[in-house]
Amino acid sequence: MTSSQGPSSPAVNALSGQAVGIVGLGLIGGSLGLDLQAAGVEVRALVHRDSTAQRARERQLAQCIDTDPGVLQGCGLIVLALPLDRLLDPPASLLAALPADAVITDVGSVKQPVLERWEPLHRRFVASHPMAGTAEAGVEAGIPGLFAGRPWVATPTPGTDPIALAAVRELAALVQAQWLTCAAPAHDQAVALISHMPVLVSAALLEAADLGGSAAGADALVRQLASSGFADTSRIGGGNPELGTLMARCNRDAVREALRSYRNQLEQLEALVDQQQWQELEGRLKHCQALRPDFL
Amino acid sequence: MTSSQGPSSPAVNALSGQAVGIVGLGLIGGSLGLDLQAAGVEVRALVHRDSTAQRARERQLAQCIDTDPGVLQGCGLIVLALPLDRLLDPPASLLAALPADAVITDVGSVKQPVLERWEPLHRRFVASHPMAGTAEAGVEAGIPGLFAGRPWVATPTPGTDPIALAAVRELAALVQAQWLTCAAPAHDQAVALISHMPVLVSAALLEAADLGGSAAGADALVRQLASSGFADTSRIGGGNPELGTLMARCNRDAVREALRSYRNQLEQLEALVDQQQWQELEGRLKHCQALRPDFL
Repeated sequence: MTSSQGPSSPAVNALSGQAVGIVGLGLIGGSLGLDLQAAGVEVRALVHRDSTAQRARERQLAQCIDTDPGVLQGCGLIVLALPLDRLLDPPASLLAALPADAVITDVGSVKQPVLERWEPLHRRFVASHPMAGTAEAGVEAGIPGLFAGRPWVATPTPGTDPIALAAVRELAALVQAQWLTCAAPAHDQAVALISHMPVLVSAALLEAADLGGSAAGADALVRQLASSGFADTSRIGGGNPELGTLMARCNRDAVREALRSYRNQLEQLEALVDQQQWQELEGRLKHCQALRPDFL
Repeated sequence: MTSSQGPSSPAVNALSGQAVGIVGLGLIGGSLGLDLQAAGVEVRALVHRDSTAQRARERQLAQCIDTDPGVLQGCGLIVLALPLDRLLDPPASLLAALPADAVITDVGSVKQPVLERWEPLHRRFVASHPMAGTAEAGVEAGIPGLFAGRPWVATPTPGTDPIALAAVRELAALVQAQWLTCAAPAHDQAVALISHMPVLVSAALLEAADLGGSAAGADALVRQLASSGFADTSRIGGGNPELGTLMARCNRDAVREALRSYRNQLEQLEALVDQQQWQELEGRLKHCQALRPDFL
């Protein structure tokens, strides 16, 4: 893993003078369009639906927005800001419209399957993952400054074109993201542990606290007493269901491994409660208290 | 369960003209002292250590602060703001100093064991639980306004003196808390589900994400990529270890039941991932998304 902070200058000014293409203007694509235009870059965007194109134009998410893949012609770098399922099963019309010399990158939260699909498709493909988000999705979701200070992870392989990688790094620097690189399997394992598996852990909490209609009084009491602690712990479990499912589906092996590891830890804590080993439990919770600042 | 919002007037003005005693000036006791004095109530406080008394006087957490239980003489209502373990094993000197006619209440987050211990000890005991908190503890933690808009739950029994209950309700109204009453077992089950069990669920997440020294590179990557979602989900697991342990210990049966229910839900989600039942998983996550606003 290597990393660098701030808008340091990459060795190669690969973007200069060339338009950036964005495929998809949801939260990530739309936010990128706003920031890149603010940085003086010409942005062209391809979207799926006419209604999205119209709204995206009103929001000025790019200078040129179209449903015709021809809009991408002349772009030096193209960002595939598509949901994982569409990224892994790209339409032929999109593939045909990608210039052979353009740098292509993606924003998917899983990297190994994306590399397996895209490295054979385009010789200048760079797998990357800007780790920024809000609870919003769709053409209304894009906001300025979304990537500032957030990690932008690239997972180059021995086959990755170094000039193409430098171009993506320049893109990340333009939106003030914190650049780092690692191997795709390490990325996928890490995001399973800190993002994909926790969605299921948090969702199970909401399900456990839902006593259902058979216990109406108790159910109402539980809702009334839930405080900020429960709100925080249940936040990602109550998030975007399509995204949560896609992450589990596209990163299934790592998510299963993370779930096994999680369940093992939880069962150990449960055993301490069963066996009334309070000193040991307090020791474990002290360790957790000491651990957490490392993750903030 | 009954509830009422805001500072409505209780039927009996049980506090008028009488001092309120507070035993313990940590987060809850100290915050209560500040709010009650601001509401014009005379507050006397008993603390354990001289150093605490001195600092509490500097912070003006009460008008009269002492390590001698005699400070409680003349109080019409006394709030036991002690940690659960000390509340369940009160010193004889404290018991001897409680006036027979005073209303006694507590602030413990578990109610059935507190009732079992305290109902035989004092005929005017009322079990209650102001549900407010911050990450802080100790004599520096008390802040004004902690209880405003937060639930203050009382769990009266057939043996509870209704005049004493009204006095505690008046106290809750003075600090702008939202009063509600329910049976102690219902309270203990509810807080196990939305507070005590989630601490362990959240702690296990920190433990699972800690790969340890054997995987130094991966460990650093996990920490670097952890985002606001992980921070939220791990917050209560990285909280006060003594408090987390006491809650599990003093509410053990309900916490075990809540953990069983939680593990059952998590295993169902895990099975959907194992069996690649993505439509079913998305349906469950949609249900969670719809559920969560009820708890906010």
